[in-house]
Amino acid sequence: MTAAARTLSELAHLVGGEVVGDGGVRIWKAASIDEAGPGDITFLAHPRYNSLLKGCKASAVILSSGTDYAELMKAGRSVLVAAQPYLAFAKILQLLTEPPRYDGVVSDRATVDPTATLGDGVTVFPYVYIGKRVKVGARAVLFPGVFLGDEVQVGDDCILHPNVAVREGCRLGQRVILHAGVVIGADGFGYAGEGGGRIKIPQVGIVEIEDDVEIGANTTVDRATLGRTVIGRGTKIDNLVQIAHNVVVGEHAVIAAQAGIAGSTRIGREVVLAGQVGIVNHIEIGDRSMIGPQSGVARSVSPGSLLSGGLEAAPHREWLRVMTLIPQLPKIWRKVRLLERKISTLRRKAGKGVKDHA
Amino acid sequence: MTAAARTLSELAHLVGGEVVGDGGVRIWKAASIDEAGPGDITFLAHPRYNSLLKGCKASAVILSSGTDYAELMKAGRSVLVAAQPYLAFAKILQLLTEPPRYDGVVSDRATVDPTATLGDGVTVFPYVYIGKRVKVGARAVLFPGVFLGDEVQVGDDCILHPNVAVREGCRLGQRVILHAGVVIGADGFGYAGEGGGRIKIPQVGIVEIEDDVEIGANTTVDRATLGRTVIGRGTKIDNLVQIAHNVVVGEHAVIAAQAGIAGSTRIGREVVLAGQVGIVNHIEIGDRSMIGPQSGVARSVSPGSLLSGGLEAAPHREWLRVMTLIPQLPKIWRKVRLLERKISTLRRKAGKGVKDHA
Amino acid sequence: MTAAARTLSELAHLVGGEVVGDGGVRIWKAASIDEAGPGDITFLAHPRYNSLLKGCKASAVILSSGTDYAELMKAGRSVLVAAQPYLAFAKILQLLTEPPRYDGVVSDRATVDPTATLGDGVTVFPYVYIGKRVKVGARAVLFPGVFLGDEVQVGDDCILHPNVAVREGCRLGQRVILHAGVVIGADGFGYAGEGGGRIKIPQVGIVEIEDDVEIGANTTVDRATLGRTVIGRGTKIDNLVQIAHNVVVGEHAVIAAQAGIAGSTRIGREVVLAGQVGIVNHIEIGDRSMIGPQSGVARSVSPGSLLSGGLEAAPHREWLRVMTLIPQLPKIWRKVRLLERKISTLRRKAGKGVKDHA
Repeated sequence: MTAAARTLSELAHLVGGEVVGDGGVRIWKAASIDEAGPGDITFLAHPRYNSLLKGCKASAVILSSGTDYAELMKAGRSVLVAAQPYLAFAKILQLLTEPPRYDGVVSDRATVDPTATLGDGVTVFPYVYIGKRVKVGARAVLFPGVFLGDEVQVGDDCILHPNVAVREGCRLGQRVILHAGVVIGADGFGYAGEGGGRIKIPQVGIVEIEDDVEIGANTTVDRATLGRTVIGRGTKIDNLVQIAHNVVVGEHAVIAAQAGIAGSTRIGREVVLAGQVGIVNHIEIGDRSMIGPQSGVARSVSPGSLLSGGLEAAPHREWLRVMTLIPQLPKIWRKVRLLERKISTLRRKAGKGVKDHA
Repeated sequence: MTAAARTLSELAHLVGGEVVGDGGVRIWKAASIDEAGPGDITFLAHPRYNSLLKGCKASAVILSSGTDYAELMKAGRSVLVAAQPYLAFAKILQLLTEPPRYDGVVSDRATVDPTATLGDGVTVFPYVYIGKRVKVGARAVLFPGVFLGDEVQVGDDCILHPNVAVREGCRLGQRVILHAGVVIGADGFGYAGEGGGRIKIPQVGIVEIEDDVEIGANTTVDRATLGRTVIGRGTKIDNLVQIAHNVVVGEHAVIAAQAGIAGSTRIGREVVLAGQVGIVNHIEIGDRSMIGPQSGVARSVSPGSLLSGGLEAAPHREWLRVMTLIPQLPKIWRKVRLLERKISTLRRKAGKGVKDHA
Repeated sequence: MTAAARTLSELAHLVGGEVVGDGGVRIWKAASIDEAGPGDITFLAHPRYNSLLKGCKASAVILSSGTDYAELMKAGRSVLVAAQPYLAFAKILQLLTEPPRYDGVVSDRATVDPTATLGDGVTVFPYVYIGKRVKVGARAVLFPGVFLGDEVQVGDDCILHPNVAVREGCRLGQRVILHAGVVIGADGFGYAGEGGGRIKIPQVGIVEIEDDVEIGANTTVDRATLGRTVIGRGTKIDNLVQIAHNVVVGEHAVIAAQAGIAGSTRIGREVVLAGQVGIVNHIEIGDRSMIGPQSGVARSVSPGSLLSGGLEAAPHREWLRVMTLIPQLPKIWRKVRLLERKISTLRRKAGKGVKDHA
C-alpha cells in the first residue's frame, strides 16, 4: 500500500506548510504517533495532545503553528508546521498510499447478462450478478457477491465492495463507493391499512446516488414509492444508517453511523447528522444544519440550525432519582406557580415595606 | 413495470370512489404530483397539501372528499374522490404495476443439495446455496447469494432478495418477503458468566416466520435458545431492526427501522413500534399498543397503550442548559418542597388574614 | 443436534449440583419449560417464575436452592439443585448438543488464490472468495458468500457464517465466530474538510480480532486510519453494532445490539454496554463499567462505573406535557431561585419570630 518515498520538503510544499529541521529527510509512510518509526511521518491534531509526542520515533511530525516542538527538535525529529494539520495529514496520507490496483478482468465465475454493457477496464470479481440492460462505467470495480438488478446504472470509477446489492433501476453516479453489505433500492416501508390487515404499496420508484458519494457498511437506502430517493453529490454516509423511501439528501452532507431518516424528509446541503440521530418523516432540515448525537428531530428546522437532544449518562443511582422526577415535571411546575401566587399574596399583605431586591 | 391502461371510471369502481370530470380518460401509470404527466394518476394524501396541485399535469388526481378541486377542473384534470385516498392509491398502484416475472429456472450456478425439494416454478438465481433436506414451496424466488441452511423450510410464493441468509432449521410461511441482507436464525446472544470469562449457551431453537410477513433490508432475527422466535402472520418489519432470541411478535404488527427488541419479550398483535424504539427483555407489549420514536420501554404495558419517551431536539445552546439542569432535578425538587414549608410557616405567622386564593 | 443421553446424576456431577429424586433418569435433551417432555431437562432461572412449573412435563428441572419443589416432586419430576441454575443449564446444554460437523472439503465452486494457505480440515463452501496470501487456520469453516481480502489471517477453529466480509489485511484469532453479514475492515469514516467539499482520508490500518471473540449478525467493525482497531480476547458483540475506526475494546467485554462506539474510543476489559448505547469518539470507558440501555456517553468514565441515561416511555398525553416542560427547565430553575430570594426577604421582614423548621 506504500508508494515511493518523498522528502519532507516535498510534502511541505504539497500542503503549503513549513519545515523546521531537516527538509531532506525521506518519508516512506504515515503512521500513528505510537507506532511511527524512522522513515514515517505522523501528526498531532491538537497542541493539547503534546505529551503523546514524548518518545515518538517518527522522522517527522505534522503540527499546528501553536505547538511547542522544542523537545521534538532536541530528539532529532523534524517538524512540518501546517495551518490545518489534519487536512495536511489527509493529503500526505493520500500521496503516500498506493491506491489498490484492479486487474480489469471480468471473472468467468461472474454472471453478466448479455444485454449488459461494461465500460473499459471494469473489474468483475467472481459471484457478481449483473442483470439485464445494466450499464457499468469505465474502471468500476465490483467485488464478490455484488448484485446489480435489471437496468441498474453504475458510473465510472465506482467501487462496490463485497455483497453490495443494488436493486433494479437504481443509478449510481461517478466515483461512488459502496462499502460491504450496503443495500440500495430495497422496497420502501409502505402499507395502507384495510380492516385488520395491510396492503403493500408497490414501491416503483428508484434510488439515485450522485457523484462522489461514499456509503458505509450495511447501510440501507430504500427506493422511492414513486419518483426517486436521492443522495446528493459528495455526501458521505457512515455504517448502519437507514435512509427511507423518497428521502432527498442534499450535496456534501455527512451522516454518522446508525442515524435514521424517515420517509420523504429532505436533508439540506452540507447538513451534518451525528450518530444515532433519528429524523421523522415529511420534514425538512435546512442547509448546513448540524444535529447532535442521539437527537430526535420531529419538525422542520431552518438553515444553519445547531440542534441537540441527546442526554448524557449519569451514575445509575442518581439517574434513577432523575428518571422518577422527569415524569413529575408537570407537578413540579404546578407547585412552583402555586408558590408564586402564595408569595405574591404574602407580599401584598406585608405591605409596601417589602422591597423587592430580586 | 407498467400493466395495461385503465379508464378512470374503472379505477373509481375498483376503489369505491367517485369520478368528477372525464371518466373515460385512460390511465397508464401512477406518478408523484410533481412528476406526473398525461396518462398518469397521482394523489393528494391530505387537503393541506392542496397547493402542491398547482401546475400538476396528471390526467387524474385522487383526492379526499373535503378537497377543493375547482382549480384542477379548470386546468382540465379529472378527479377521483375517495374516502381514503391513500388506500385507493395503494390499490390503483397495485393494479397498474405489472408484477415482476421470474423465469422459474434453477441456475446451474446455484448449489442445491440433492436431498432438498423445490416446488413447481421455483426460481433459483446463481450463487444460491440450498442445504440438506431444505423444502422450498412453489413459485418461490431466491435471488443471488441467498443461503438456506440445512432443513430450512420456505413456503409458496416467498421472495428472498440478494444475500439473505436463513440458518439451519428455520421456517418461513407463504408469501414471505425478505429484503436484501436479512439474517434469519443467527445465534441468540446468550452467555453464562463463569469466573472472568463467559460460556456460550448453545442456541438450538429456531425462527418461525408466519405467512405474509415482510422484513426490511439488513434486519436480523435471532434463533431461540430453545424453542422458537416467532414473527406473527402479516407483520411488517422495516430495515436494520434487531429481534433477539425467543421474542414472539404477534400478528399484523408494524416495526419501524432500527427498532430493537431484547430477548424473550412478547409483542402483541397489531402493535406499532416507531423508529429506533428499544424494548428490554422478558416483558410484554399488549395488543394494539403504539410506541413513539426513540422510546425505551422497560416494563410491560397493557393492551392499547399509547406510549412516548423520545425527546425533541432543541437549539444547542438552550439544550446545554437543559442538560445541566436535568441531573439537578432532585435538587430542584428538594428546594421546591423546602419553599413550600417556609411559606406555610410564613402564612401561619401572618395569621388568618391571608386568604388562599390559589 | 442431540448427542447421547446422560443420567441426571452424571449431569449433576458435571455442574456440581445435587439431585433430588431419581438420579438415574435418562436425559436426552434440554427444552424450554413449556415445551419439555419426558427425557428432557429444563430450568427455572429464578424462584419468582415458580408458577411456570405447573404442568411441566420435563423429566428433570434445574433449580436454585431457594426454590420450593414440593409440587414438582409430587408430579414425579426430578430436580437438580444448582448454585447458579443458568450456568448449570449452559453447561448441560453444551454437553447435550451435538456440535455441527463440517466435511473439511474445499468446494471447487469456491475461489482460492493460489498464494493462500489453508490449514488442515478447513471447510470452504461454494461462493467463498479467498484473496492473495490469505492464511486460514486448521478446521476453520467458511460458509457461502464469505469474502477474505488479500493478506487476511483467520485463526484455527474460526466459523465465518454466510456473507461475512473481511477486508484486506485484517486478522482474526482462534475460535472467532462471525455471524452472517458481519463486515470487518470497511473503511473508517474519515474526511478532512476543504472548501465546500471533503477529502477522503485513506484508511490504511487494519482490524485485529483476538481469540474467542463472537460477533453478531450484520455488525460492522471499521479498519483503523493508521494502526489497528482491536476487539479484545473473549469479547462478545451482538447484532447490528457499529465499532468505528481505531476503537480498542478490551478483553471479555459484552456489547449488546445496536450499540455504537465512535472513533478512537477505548472500552475497558469486562465492560458491559446495553442495547442502543452510543459512545462518542476519543474517550475511555474504564474497566468493568456498565452502561444502561440507550445511554449516551460523552466523556470518559472511571473503572467500575455504573451509568444510565435512558428515559422510560410514558403514556403519550402525559409525555407531551413533560416534553413541553423539559426545555423550560432553565425558566423553572430561575423561578425557584427568585422565590427563594423573595421568601428570604419576607422572613427577614417578619422578624426573628419566624423559626425555620425546614
